[in-house]
Amino acid sequence: MGLRKAGVLGATGSVGQRFIQLLSNHPQFELAVLGASSRSAGKKYKDAVDWKQTSLMPAAAGEIVVSECTVEAFKDCDVVFSGLDADYAGPIEKAFKEAGLAVISNAKNYRREKDVPLVVPTVNSEHLAIIEKRVKDAAAAGQKRPGFIVCISNCSTAGLVAPLRPLVDKFGPIELLTTTTMQAISGAGFSPGFPGIDILDNLVPYISGEEEKIEWETKKILGEIADDGNSVKNLSDDEIRVSAQCNRVAVSDGHTECVSVKFKNGAPSIDAIKQCLRDYQCEATLLNCPSAPKHAIHVLEEQNRPQPRLDRDRDNGYGVSVGRIREDPVLDVKMVILSHNTIIGAAGSGVLIAEILAAKNVI
Amino acid sequence: MGLRKAGVLGATGSVGQRFIQLLSNHPQFELAVLGASSRSAGKKYKDAVDWKQTSLMPAAAGEIVVSECTVEAFKDCDVVFSGLDADYAGPIEKAFKEAGLAVISNAKNYRREKDVPLVVPTVNSEHLAIIEKRVKDAAAAGQKRPGFIVCISNCSTAGLVAPLRPLVDKFGPIELLTTTTMQAISGAGFSPGFPGIDILDNLVPYISGEEEKIEWETKKILGEIADDGNSVKNLSDDEIRVSAQCNRVAVSDGHTECVSVKFKNGAPSIDAIKQCLRDYQCEATLLNCPSAPKHAIHVLEEQNRPQPRLDRDRDNGYGVSVGRIREDPVLDVKMVILSHNTIIGAAGSGVLIAEILAAKNVI
Amino acid sequence: MGLRKAGVLGATGSVGQRFIQLLSNHPQFELAVLGASSRSAGKKYKDAVDWKQTSLMPAAAGEIVVSECTVEAFKDCDVVFSGLDADYAGPIEKAFKEAGLAVISNAKNYRREKDVPLVVPTVNSEHLAIIEKRVKDAAAAGQKRPGFIVCISNCSTAGLVAPLRPLVDKFGPIELLTTTTMQAISGAGFSPGFPGIDILDNLVPYISGEEEKIEWETKKILGEIADDGNSVKNLSDDEIRVSAQCNRVAVSDGHTECVSVKFKNGAPSIDAIKQCLRDYQCEATLLNCPSAPKHAIHVLEEQNRPQPRLDRDRDNGYGVSVGRIREDPVLDVKMVILSHNTIIGAAGSGVLIAEILAAKNVI
Amino acid sequence: MGLRKAGVLGATGSVGQRFIQLLSNHPQFELAVLGASSRSAGKKYKDAVDWKQTSLMPAAAGEIVVSECTVEAFKDCDVVFSGLDADYAGPIEKAFKEAGLAVISNAKNYRREKDVPLVVPTVNSEHLAIIEKRVKDAAAAGQKRPGFIVCISNCSTAGLVAPLRPLVDKFGPIELLTTTTMQAISGAGFSPGFPGIDILDNLVPYISGEEEKIEWETKKILGEIADDGNSVKNLSDDEIRVSAQCNRVAVSDGHTECVSVKFKNGAPSIDAIKQCLRDYQCEATLLNCPSAPKHAIHVLEEQNRPQPRLDRDRDNGYGVSVGRIREDPVLDVKMVILSHNTIIGAAGSGVLIAEILAAKNVI
Repeated sequence: MGLRKAGVLGATGSVGQRFIQLLSNHPQFELAVLGASSRSAGKKYKDAVDWKQTSLMPAAAGEIVVSECTVEAFKDCDVVFSGLDADYAGPIEKAFKEAGLAVISNAKNYRREKDVPLVVPTVNSEHLAIIEKRVKDAAAAGQKRPGFIVCISNCSTAGLVAPLRPLVDKFGPIELLTTTTMQAISGAGFSPGFPGIDILDNLVPYISGEEEKIEWETKKILGEIADDGNSVKNLSDDEIRVSAQCNRVAVSDGHTECVSVKFKNGAPSIDAIKQCLRDYQCEATLLNCPSAPKHAIHVLEEQNRPQPRLDRDRDNGYGVSVGRIREDPVLDVKMVILSHNTIIGAAGSGVLIAEILAAKNVI
Repeated sequence: MGLRKAGVLGATGSVGQRFIQLLSNHPQFELAVLGASSRSAGKKYKDAVDWKQTSLMPAAAGEIVVSECTVEAFKDCDVVFSGLDADYAGPIEKAFKEAGLAVISNAKNYRREKDVPLVVPTVNSEHLAIIEKRVKDAAAAGQKRPGFIVCISNCSTAGLVAPLRPLVDKFGPIELLTTTTMQAISGAGFSPGFPGIDILDNLVPYISGEEEKIEWETKKILGEIADDGNSVKNLSDDEIRVSAQCNRVAVSDGHTECVSVKFKNGAPSIDAIKQCLRDYQCEATLLNCPSAPKHAIHVLEEQNRPQPRLDRDRDNGYGVSVGRIREDPVLDVKMVILSHNTIIGAAGSGVLIAEILAAKNVI
Repeated sequence: MGLRKAGVLGATGSVGQRFIQLLSNHPQFELAVLGASSRSAGKKYKDAVDWKQTSLMPAAAGEIVVSECTVEAFKDCDVVFSGLDADYAGPIEKAFKEAGLAVISNAKNYRREKDVPLVVPTVNSEHLAIIEKRVKDAAAAGQKRPGFIVCISNCSTAGLVAPLRPLVDKFGPIELLTTTTMQAISGAGFSPGFPGIDILDNLVPYISGEEEKIEWETKKILGEIADDGNSVKNLSDDEIRVSAQCNRVAVSDGHTECVSVKFKNGAPSIDAIKQCLRDYQCEATLLNCPSAPKHAIHVLEEQNRPQPRLDRDRDNGYGVSVGRIREDPVLDVKMVILSHNTIIGAAGSGVLIAEILAAKNVI
Repeated sequence: MGLRKAGVLGATGSVGQRFIQLLSNHPQFELAVLGASSRSAGKKYKDAVDWKQTSLMPAAAGEIVVSECTVEAFKDCDVVFSGLDADYAGPIEKAFKEAGLAVISNAKNYRREKDVPLVVPTVNSEHLAIIEKRVKDAAAAGQKRPGFIVCISNCSTAGLVAPLRPLVDKFGPIELLTTTTMQAISGAGFSPGFPGIDILDNLVPYISGEEEKIEWETKKILGEIADDGNSVKNLSDDEIRVSAQCNRVAVSDGHTECVSVKFKNGAPSIDAIKQCLRDYQCEATLLNCPSAPKHAIHVLEEQNRPQPRLDRDRDNGYGVSVGRIREDPVLDVKMVILSHNTIIGAAGSGVLIAEILAAKNVI
C-alpha cells in the first residue's frame, strides 16, 4: 500500500502544528489537506500560521493551501487528525464520521461516548478493537467502510495511566489513586495561550475541567471492552477512586505528576513494581509501528529525576518516565511520572493510534 | 522595658539577611551583634554581604562590624537568632545555650530534641510553655536565667500545619495527611543556592531530606506537652500517617502545597471547614505581638487561588492562604495551601517567636 | 481644599488597576468614578475585574459600581486618569477634554499633538506650563476652566530620559543616543497580555511601535516650550539622533536599558556625570508632592546592578536607577538604566503629574 | 584513515559534556580518553558526572573510566578537546602542547597569544593556516608533528562576528561596532553555574570580563595572518572601535545580540546586506565537514525573530540567525543576531575546528 492521505483539522493551532510536524516525512502518511477557519482558508499554510514549534516548519506543508473544515475538502483522506478546539469540534467531527471518514481527535467532545474508544496508544490500544470489529462487520456485510471517531485522551491522563496499565495487569486492581500534576503551559494552546504574567515567578493551582477529566477518563482507559464488543465499559466508582489536583507551572513542555496508588490485593514490593514497568512492552512496539517507543516506560533510579527539561524527549516524547518509586505511608506506593504533553499527551498519540489502525488494516 | 538586644548568627546568609530585614526598626528589638564566618568577621556588614533582598539593606545594619560566632561576642544579647547552616549550627548553638543565651534557630539540628520546642508561632506557640516553665523554675530557685534553644520548623511544614491546627482543635484528629509541595527556590539559600539551569523551563521533583522533615515535624508540632511539662510528646504513627512529595519549582518566594486530609471522626462539611479556618485566631494575635498577622489563615474563594506571586505577602508573609477547599474522592477533603517560606517558614517565624517570648517575659 | 474627585477610564485593565492601587488612600484624591466597557458597567468593581496586582484590591474600590466611559458619568471629576487602550482612547478622551474635563492619559493617541504636553513628571514637568497658561488665560478671561489632555510618555522612554535631563542641563546637548531595552511583560497589559510560551526560556527582540515611540518621544520630552507658550517644540533630527532596539524579556516589572550617549560639547568625566545625577532634584520633589521620589535618580556603584527584581521598587517605583556608568569606545559614555514600567513608566507618572497640577492649582 | 582518537579535558563540566555529546557516534573521531579532576579519576564516567544535557548520556561514554588530566593519559590522542576552567587550563594545555599534542581549547588562557589562532570555524578558519604551516614545516624538516593549541572564541564573540565577516569581505571595513548582548545562563557553566534566584523574574546587566573579551577578540578574529605566516595580526583600535554591553537573561541556551555597525566606505543597502549574508558559504561547508552548517547564516524576515527558543537549533546550532536588519539612525545598520552559545559559541566550534584540521590533514 502506498502512503495514506492524511488531513489535519485545526491545522494552524497548537495541536495542529504538532500533527503537521509529526506527519511530515512520515513513512505511512502523506499530508494532503490542512483545514482551518475561514480566516485562514485560501492562504498558503506558511502565510496563515504563526508557527511556534522549535523545529522549522516543514517546507512542503508551508506550500499547502489551507481549506475550510468541510467534508468536501477532506473527502479523499484515509485518516483525518483533529486538533480542533472543543468549541468547534462537535459538529465538524460528527459530520466527518457520518460521511465515512476516519477521525482521530484530540478534542474532548466525544470522549465519553461508549462506542468511541478513548485511547492512549501505549496503554489501551486493545480498545481499538471495537472500531476494527465495526469495519470488519461492514466489510462482511458488503457495506462501505463506516466512518468513526477515536479520541485521544486528555494530556495529563495519558501520563498517569501509562505506568498503571502494566501494574494492574500484573498485580491486580488499583483501588485508590491520587495525582497532583504540575503541567506545562504548552497544554494551554496559544491563541492566546497561557498568559506570561501568570507563570513568571508563579504557578496557578487550577486548570479548568482538568481534574474531572483525569478522574473520569482514567476509569474508561483502564476499563474493558463490553461483552458485545461494541463499546467500552468504564471501571466503576466502587472499583477505583481517583483524586486529582492540577497545577500549571513554568514549564514549556512536559507534565510531571506526583502519584500514589493503593492496590486491592496488597502492595507489591518496590522492586517488583520496577521490574514490571521495565518489562512492559506495548502493542504498538510489538507491531513495529514507526513512532512506537522502544520503551513505553522508562524507570529512572536517580533520586532527582524525572525532570521535564531533561527527560521529556525520551523515545521522541512517546516514552513516559517514572522515578522515585517508593513506599507511601498513606497509600501503598508513590512515584513521579513525567510525560510529554504534546506527544504522548496529544498529537503524538493521534499519529501512533493511526499507525496502529494502519497495522491492523482498519485505515 | 527598653529595646532588647538581638544578635544574628549566619548574618550574611539567606536566612540571616531576612532576620536583619525584619529586625531593623523593630519596636522591641535592637540589632546589636551580627555573626558570620571568619572570612566576614571584622568587615562592616555592608562590605561582607551580597545583599539579595528586594528591599534595600537597612543602613544601620550595614555599618555594624561583623563578629565571629562566639559566645563572647554575643554575651550581652537578650536573644540570638540563628540562620546558620546545619553544618555549623550544632556546636555553636549548643555553646550559646550552655552559656545562658536564648537561641531561636532556623537550623534543623535540635528540632528532634524532646526538650526543644519546634514552633510555628501561629500554630503551636503553647509549646513554648516548656521554656517558660524552665525559666520560671530557675527564677524560683534563685538561679540565673537558663539558656535555651527554640527551633523554627521546616518551611514547608509550617505552611502545612497552619490550617491543620484549627481543624484538629474543632473536628478532632486527622489520621491521614498527604501533601505534594511546589517549593520556591529561595528556600535553598544562595551560597550558591539553587542553580538557574535546573529551574528554567524545568522543575525538580526532589528536595533532599524535605519529605522526611514534613512527615516527622508535623507529628511534633501537632503533639502535646508531656505531663511533666518539660518536653513535647509527638503524635504516634498510629495516630497520624503523613505522606509528602516535594518539588522545587520556578518561584522565588512562596511554597504551594496540594493537601488532602482524612479525619478520624468523619468529614466535616466544606462550609464548616471554611468557617473554622476563618474564625481562627492565633495566640500571637491575641497577645498583640507586633508582627502577628491579623488573620493567620486567609480562606480564598476564587477557584484559581492562592498563587505565590499574588498571595504570598498577605499579612506581610505571616498570613497563610488556603484555597480550593473541596471534597476529595480518596481521603475526605483536599485544599491548596500557600505560605511565605522565608517569613512564616523561616526568619519571620523566628521573630514572631521572640515577640511571643517577650510578651511572656521569657526574654 | 478637600479631596479632589478622581475618575479612572479603563479601570479593569492593567494600567487602570495600577491607577486604582495608587489612588486608594491618596492624601489628595478620592476615587470617585471607575469607567470600563459596557460588559463591566453596572457591576461592582470587584465583580468586574480580574485583579492581578501583588497587593490586595483596595476594599473601597471593590465596592464602586463600574460606569461606562461617558462624559456624563465623569462630569464631576476634578481629574480623570485614562488607562484606555489606544483602540478606544481617541474619541473618548477628546470628548472628555471638550467637555471641560482634565484628562491625564497613558494612551498614545494624543502624544504627538503640539499643544498636548508629553510628560515624565520627574523630568519635564515644566512642559505643564502650557496647560497652566491655558487655565489661567481662561480664568483671566472669565471663562470656565478649559478641558485638557496631558499625556504620560511611553514606558521605556520614561526610563531613558530620566537621567538624560540633568545631564543635558549641566553638560549641554546630547547629539547621539542609543538604547537597547529589555522590557518587562507587564508593559504588554493582560487582555490577553504577553503569552507565556513566548517568554519561557525565551525573549522576543521586537515590540510593535516601541522603537519609533522612543525615537520620537525623546525629542519632545527633551524639547522646549515654544515662544508663544502654547506648545512644545521638539528637538530636531539635526539636534539629536536616537536609535532604539527593543526586546521583551522574562521579567514581570521593570525595564532595563543599555544606553550610550555622545555629547555635543565633549564628554564629561565619569565622576562628573555621577555627581550630576546624584545632585539632581526634580520639581515634584521640591513641590513636596506626596508621591515624589526622594531621589529621582539613584546612582549605583555595584558592578552588577541595577537588577529589576532588586531595584525596581526604589522610591516606590518613582526612583530610576542608573548603574555601570563608564566610558564607551564608540560614543562617549555608556550606562544601564532601570525604571519601573508601571510606575514611572505609566500609572505612577499619571498620579504624580496630577499631584504637580494640584500643587500649581491647575486642577 | 580510521577514526582519530579524541580526548576530552574537563569531561565532567558543562563544556566537556557537550564535547562528549558531539563526539559520540562522530564519523571521524572516537572518544578515547576522558580527563577530569582527581576527585573523578578512576570512576566510570557515568558515576563521575552529573549529566545535565537534554539528550541522554551516550552509553559508551558512560563506561569510560575517567583519567586525570595528564599527558601520559592522553598521549595516544590525535586531538584533545579542552573544556577546562581557566583556573586549571593554563599549565595543563601548555604541557599537552609541549608534549606534541593537538589541543583545541575553549579556555581563555591562550587566546591572546599571537601564534595561537582564535577561531570561529564558520568565520575565520583561514587563521588555521598558521598551524598548517607549522605542521608542514616540521614535516619538511623531518621533525615529528609539533604540538599546538587552537582557541575557540568567547561565546558571545562568535555570534557577533559570524555575520560581520561576509559583510567586511564584500563592503569593506567596519569602523564602529556596538553590541548589547542578552546571554543564556548555560554559558556560565554549572558548578555551581548561574544562581536561580538571580535569573527568576530578573536579569543581570553584567558578566565578568565578557565585554572586554568581545571588544578584544573581535579585532583578532577579523584580523589577518601576518606576513610571515606564523601569527595573527589584530585590527587596530584605529581600524575598528567596538563597544559591548553584556547581560545575563532567563534563557537556557542561545545568545541574542542587538548590533549596530558603521562601515568605513559608506552604508550598503539593506537588501545588499541581506543578499550578502544569504550568499555566504563558509570554508567548512565547502570542505564538506560533517558538522558544517548548510547555511552558516540564516537571514530571517519575520519582524519578531530570531528568538532563542525557536531559532537556536538551526543547522544543529552551527547556523547563526540574523533578523531585523534595518537602518540605524546613529550608525549605519542595526540587526539582531542569535547564536547557540554552547555549539557555535563553545564545544561545537571545537569539533568543527577539528573537522577542518582533519580535512586539511593537520591532525
